[in-house]
Amino acid sequence: MNMLVDGEWRTDAYDTTDDDGSFERQSTTFRNEIRDDPDARFQPEAGRYHLYVSAACPWAHRALVTRALTGLEDAISVSVVDPYRDEDGWQFTPDKAGCTPDHVHGADYLRELYVRADPDATCRVTVPVLWDKREDTIVNNESAEIMRMLATEFGSLASRNVDLYPEGYRAAVDRIVDEIYEPINNGVYRAGFATKQDPYDEAVDDLFAALDHWDEVLAEQRYLAGDRLTEADIAMFTTLVRFDNVYHTHFMCNVQYVREYDNLWPYLRDLYQTPGVARTVNMDHIKEHYYTTHPDVNPHRIVARGPDPEFDAPHDRDELPGGPPSALLAGASADE
Amino acid sequence: MNMLVDGEWRTDAYDTTDDDGSFERQSTTFRNEIRDDPDARFQPEAGRYHLYVSAACPWAHRALVTRALTGLEDAISVSVVDPYRDEDGWQFTPDKAGCTPDHVHGADYLRELYVRADPDATCRVTVPVLWDKREDTIVNNESAEIMRMLATEFGSLASRNVDLYPEGYRAAVDRIVDEIYEPINNGVYRAGFATKQDPYDEAVDDLFAALDHWDEVLAEQRYLAGDRLTEADIAMFTTLVRFDNVYHTHFMCNVQYVREYDNLWPYLRDLYQTPGVARTVNMDHIKEHYYTTHPDVNPHRIVARGPDPEFDAPHDRDELPGGPPSALLAGASADE
Repeated sequence: MNMLVDGEWRTDAYDTTDDDGSFERQSTTFRNEIRDDPDARFQPEAGRYHLYVSAACPWAHRALVTRALTGLEDAISVSVVDPYRDEDGWQFTPDKAGCTPDHVHGADYLRELYVRADPDATCRVTVPVLWDKREDTIVNNESAEIMRMLATEFGSLASRNVDLYPEGYRAAVDRIVDEIYEPINNGVYRAGFATKQDPYDEAVDDLFAALDHWDEVLAEQRYLAGDRLTEADIAMFTTLVRFDNVYHTHFMCNVQYVREYDNLWPYLRDLYQTPGVARTVNMDHIKEHYYTTHPDVNPHRIVARGPDPEFDAPHDRDELPGGPPSALLAGASADE
Repeated sequence: MNMLVDGEWRTDAYDTTDDDGSFERQSTTFRNEIRDDPDARFQPEAGRYHLYVSAACPWAHRALVTRALTGLEDAISVSVVDPYRDEDGWQFTPDKAGCTPDHVHGADYLRELYVRADPDATCRVTVPVLWDKREDTIVNNESAEIMRMLATEFGSLASRNVDLYPEGYRAAVDRIVDEIYEPINNGVYRAGFATKQDPYDEAVDDLFAALDHWDEVLAEQRYLAGDRLTEADIAMFTTLVRFDNVYHTHFMCNVQYVREYDNLWPYLRDLYQTPGVARTVNMDHIKEHYYTTHPDVNPHRIVARGPDPEFDAPHDRDELPGGPPSALLAGASADE
């Protein structure tokens, strides 16, 4: 693996596993805030910010979905890296389908942006990155914080009145985003990157206990926090949509498919069919990234054929109270 | 990998893949015949022959099922190797659950038997091995031939009148055993051991086209060759029973589970529930073998949790003409 060490790119400096064979995710580094506040250093402003994402990455995908649902496409531009990540880290390959150049600096590698933001950077080079064109630096690279900023601080620039962190639901959203992180969002990685049996078994136990729990909850309510679509659903969605195609086989999370769950599967289809969401899903990038990028897991980098879940199949979740924000439904036909 | 080269054990002498990344199975070496014929060198005789098997191996499993169905347990003894195969090849670890000593020679490694049979042996050391205690040599190590000999040449010693190669079905059985070998029995290995995308894709296409075909055939008839249980079913069974637990994830044969097929899945349960068959299935050995023995496929040797198909669930296949041989049903309650 690899990371920046004092601004230098090192391919020998990063190991994902502890001595006991369990996967430990390192924390992200840039944690500034955009706030809709005249005194804030980073304020919402059309055209000022840029998102660097991989369409393959579930963390970056959170930012893409939030941007799509709130209608921030015109206000916040996006660059998409190559889904294949080798020893040189994430890179820009504009000629490849679904990829773009670095629109801001024309960089070849994402790490160039990290060094530009901090010449002494000592960290992993990850997506998403929320970039400030005015200060020419990274605002933040922590997905949950970027999701929150996009959901709450850009109201004046959003083309739709879609509140993903509504009053009355905030405590629940905060709790759920936190609660699903370790067993589910990071849990699939803990299973897949474990190098010994015990940490794998523990991760699989945690993962499926959590999926079982949420499957029960979703029998009674349309979304994780109740009758409103929130950030919590976005955080769940970007893991679930990758599950059957990738995590099940590649990370050996194979106790059950999401599509075998009575409620999680219709819930996943409901989210997928929410106007604006489907076009953020690039399954080709997702499959290429995972199967080809982890030779420790899949040495010959062969992309598994896998199942082809029908994300477009009817879901019947509209029998439950609530539903997508009306602002999304109003613009759906033109939008999709 | 490893093999015997002129009677010497070599760990650098065997490679399963061609330059184009496709898996090529080498042919077996010992191809003598036991015949129920007074002029034959190897004649059926109680206590004379011994089977060396791995309970994990689908090829060896064919011999175990044939022996169980025909009631040759008393006439032909069995030794079971350790499911974990390392650079030293198959070995005897009698203290491990489900394993036995080498009852004939007390060997530590299966390769010792190969060298004993032929001091200049130049071949892979595989199971099953049909051993002649009288001549102290290997009769045969080709699974389809061993299955055939056990099914047809031991009638006088078999405790049950079960004909697995019946007159009127023989051409069909020969055709089917041959026809399912490349896409299905060997096809899962071609998918799993491919080192490049194209051979993997080709193997997966062949495999699922063949499974789809037989699923259709089995909508109309109870067994592969019609209304009679035959060797062809045994050859199919030992692959299908490993499919969902191992091949689906470990060999990335993940287009579909067997348990998602309308007819293959009840057919598999029907075979599993045929008296005598279930006790030949050691799923612990099967899972340990595959997941821990192929570091090129699964570097950290973690055993995937996997699904737990209900092989004992009712199958309704008795609505179709035919069924298990009456000799099996008669002894079923005492036998199981």
